Amino acid sequence: MLCVAAMACTVSARADTLKQQVDGWRTAHEQDILTPFDTLIRFHSVAAEPQGIAAAAGWLQDALKTRGFQTELLAVPGAPPVVFGSLPTPGATRTVVFYAHYDGQPVTPSQWATPPFDPVMRSGPLGSGEHVVDWKTATPPYDPEWRLYGRSAGDDKVSALVFLQAFDALKALGRRPSVNIKVVWEGEEEAGSPHLQEILRKNADKLSADLWLIGDAPVHQSRRPLLYVGARGITGFDATIYGPIKPVHDGHYGNWVPNPAALAAELVAEMRAPDGRVLIPGFMDEVRAQTSAERKAIAALPPVAGELKQEFQIAQPETTDRLIEAIMRPALNVRGLRAGKVGTAATNAIPVDAELSIDFRLVPDQTPEHVRAQVEAFLRAKGWTIVDRTPDEATRLAHPRIIKIDWEAGYAAFRSDMSSPTARAVMAAAQSASDMPLAISPMLGGSVPLYIFDEIFHAPIIGLPVANHDDNQHAANENIRLQNVWDGIDVYAAMMAELSW
Amino acid sequence: MLCVAAMACTVSARADTLKQQVDGWRTAHEQDILTPFDTLIRFHSVAAEPQGIAAAAGWLQDALKTRGFQTELLAVPGAPPVVFGSLPTPGATRTVVFYAHYDGQPVTPSQWATPPFDPVMRSGPLGSGEHVVDWKTATPPYDPEWRLYGRSAGDDKVSALVFLQAFDALKALGRRPSVNIKVVWEGEEEAGSPHLQEILRKNADKLSADLWLIGDAPVHQSRRPLLYVGARGITGFDATIYGPIKPVHDGHYGNWVPNPAALAAELVAEMRAPDGRVLIPGFMDEVRAQTSAERKAIAALPPVAGELKQEFQIAQPETTDRLIEAIMRPALNVRGLRAGKVGTAATNAIPVDAELSIDFRLVPDQTPEHVRAQVEAFLRAKGWTIVDRTPDEATRLAHPRIIKIDWEAGYAAFRSDMSSPTARAVMAAAQSASDMPLAISPMLGGSVPLYIFDEIFHAPIIGLPVANHDDNQHAANENIRLQNVWDGIDVYAAMMAELSW
Repeated sequence: MLCVAAMACTVSARADTLKQQVDGWRTAHEQDILTPFDTLIRFHSVAAEPQGIAAAAGWLQDALKTRGFQTELLAVPGAPPVVFGSLPTPGATRTVVFYAHYDGQPVTPSQWATPPFDPVMRSGPLGSGEHVVDWKTATPPYDPEWRLYGRSAGDDKVSALVFLQAFDALKALGRRPSVNIKVVWEGEEEAGSPHLQEILRKNADKLSADLWLIGDAPVHQSRRPLLYVGARGITGFDATIYGPIKPVHDGHYGNWVPNPAALAAELVAEMRAPDGRVLIPGFMDEVRAQTSAERKAIAALPPVAGELKQEFQIAQPETTDRLIEAIMRPALNVRGLRAGKVGTAATNAIPVDAELSIDFRLVPDQTPEHVRAQVEAFLRAKGWTIVDRTPDEATRLAHPRIIKIDWEAGYAAFRSDMSSPTARAVMAAAQSASDMPLAISPMLGGSVPLYIFDEIFHAPIIGLPVANHDDNQHAANENIRLQNVWDGIDVYAAMMAELSW
Repeated sequence: MLCVAAMACTVSARADTLKQQVDGWRTAHEQDILTPFDTLIRFHSVAAEPQGIAAAAGWLQDALKTRGFQTELLAVPGAPPVVFGSLPTPGATRTVVFYAHYDGQPVTPSQWATPPFDPVMRSGPLGSGEHVVDWKTATPPYDPEWRLYGRSAGDDKVSALVFLQAFDALKALGRRPSVNIKVVWEGEEEAGSPHLQEILRKNADKLSADLWLIGDAPVHQSRRPLLYVGARGITGFDATIYGPIKPVHDGHYGNWVPNPAALAAELVAEMRAPDGRVLIPGFMDEVRAQTSAERKAIAALPPVAGELKQEFQIAQPETTDRLIEAIMRPALNVRGLRAGKVGTAATNAIPVDAELSIDFRLVPDQTPEHVRAQVEAFLRAKGWTIVDRTPDEATRLAHPRIIKIDWEAGYAAFRSDMSSPTARAVMAAAQSASDMPLAISPMLGGSVPLYIFDEIFHAPIIGLPVANHDDNQHAANENIRLQNVWDGIDVYAAMMAELSW
């Protein structure tokens, strides 16, 4: 690496060494690294299995305790605990919190090639001619293209795993952390973090820090290491649109009895243009303009369209914008639509109702409350009557367009300052941990509740992903590529031992 | 009844007597009438059960044979047979064919209050405080508001049943038919009559007649007896719209990867206006203008909106037109829509596909071929690539909007001359069989393949319905109201013994 700026030289001269040292340690310990990872994935830490959540939390707490951390399970009634750990570094003036989450998306085991909580190593992505590998009996170093399959492998247990392994590497290498270290590992991120704010607020003193590093989401699609300084927020709703009280012969009554499937389709088309633009009046009013630093960062991101079109087998995206430009905008996603019957089950009838599931990905300065108000005002302007339960006969007879809406709470988007000294220090340390150029993104398309940390702590927040982008997170056959684990250990080691500002 | 015109007096003076006589016979035989109806409904004569179709056809053939008809099963390979019967009347100069169908719509037994092929009598419509009645042990005469529940009860086994019972009544009363009688009972009407044309054409000589009476569809919503001289045609398709090859995280890729649920919704909204108008260019070009006789008949039909809004629990129809005006127009019905998941099963993902099921109700002079061509031209103009099988990777990568379409054959609409001597004779005979004024409709909203009969036989075609309009045909809990059975026997007896022109 060439040194072109004083700070970068200072950092990279030391960190190149650190990366090499960590890589050396890792190469000698690949099996030891994967063993606890295998254990961690085996916990059924999904919302439907509270005992799996509790077991994972206990294991993680023990892992910190063993390493000398002061630990605690931060809890409020009815919520999975936050695993908290703290380890001061004598003489350090900065404190960094490492956030990750140990819960995973729900699973539908029938969709998985192998059971979601029995980790299986494969020589590559499913469908690529890969084969199952018995890594426990294979001799390291392992092929870095191997992938470990299991729910939460990439989203997001790998972030906790590389934290622990990076810590061990530094200890083994005799390298002292450069910062005070805190850990916040959440247990209900995949459920929308409904209690995180309350837990953080109750423990605000304990959690004070100069920087939050958010270990979640995948690295850039180009495989470059990624830092992100913002993330889209989220809200959404499930709606039911009502037609006749019973299925009605669509010959005798088609053109006369309102068709809820057609109404649902019209509603979607009124809210969303074919290129994804949201047509709800006022929806874009709160979208914050981009800074010149953000525009520069966006321009510097490598192209990904070609690879992604191939991966998703699509001829073209729905917009002419680049992916990063598209996710700088809010999105209206139709997650699901159901009305009547299709295929051989279809009957010539006007269906009794239509169900519609939509989520909104928000960008600064949109909030769920604003979006909800805008959507409901839009619906009322279009003649809809909004109800919160199945309408009775009197309601049906009184109102021509009835929609039942069930909103998710969700949370706002957040984007922090890319140009702060803290952000620059994180970028320099991350760059020192990789031979590839960094990808620095003003926004992550997926949602991470960054705004909660900002609202309570007002400290810089930077996203530090580990997983491969094609890890099937939120789907069946989630997996983590070994090279991403190794890179994650490098960058986490740099964040503990190289950060200074 | 007052006699105001010579012909009406001639007919009604005799027919009033016939109606009274038939009513008298029926009152004495109500249990005997329902017993074979119960047997007939028990046959699983639906497309999915060919052996049920065959059994019903055999039973019907025997019923005709027993009554002295020459019978035959008219068949072509792969199709349910048409039950044909013929009984000449010495001295008669006119021949009338009575058409009905003995197959029923598919069933979803879980949606039924009682199994669809185990007929159950109830004291009224479901949900009206009704109770189950054991009609086999009850003493007739039965309450005419009782309803017999079972698949095909109203659509359309009742038409065959009342034919047989009217024939028995005439015989018991010593009344000779006034016409030569032929019977055509079809076995795949609910599948769109794909082989009817072929069967009729092959047997055209046998089937020659001066009048086709089509025993299908419900009477007028006002409960008046209905004659119809036309019926909408039908075609339709099931379509699959393709998104990414696997479910894609809608945070990271929402706004960029095309969403097939949104595409399906847009497509529906582009094809169909909120008031039901079809927006496909050229779609209305072939719609025939109304004659003044038709306009008069439409104006004379009693209003039904109030009762129907109550029955369907809708505040208002989707159009400001009267029902009869709405069904004089073609319709685009969305039978079903499915994409992704809704409710608690929803995940934050862009679905891999969307399925859409649509039928078109056609009016003269539209044909399925024209509609198909118009729809496909419209789709191509909107950038869609139409395929007939699941696209492979190369196809997906080459075309941005891919839709797989599976068309149903369907058939054209038909409207015959309301002013012909034959039509007038049928109207007079029908009026003689009822104490209520007739409702005469230029069009039936539902589809009956009248055009096939016209194309082959060029004889007048008139629809003669029996079932109550609220018989849940094409839905769960199909039923027939006993008064409609009794009225059906009256009008069928009049058509056999009173017709002359």
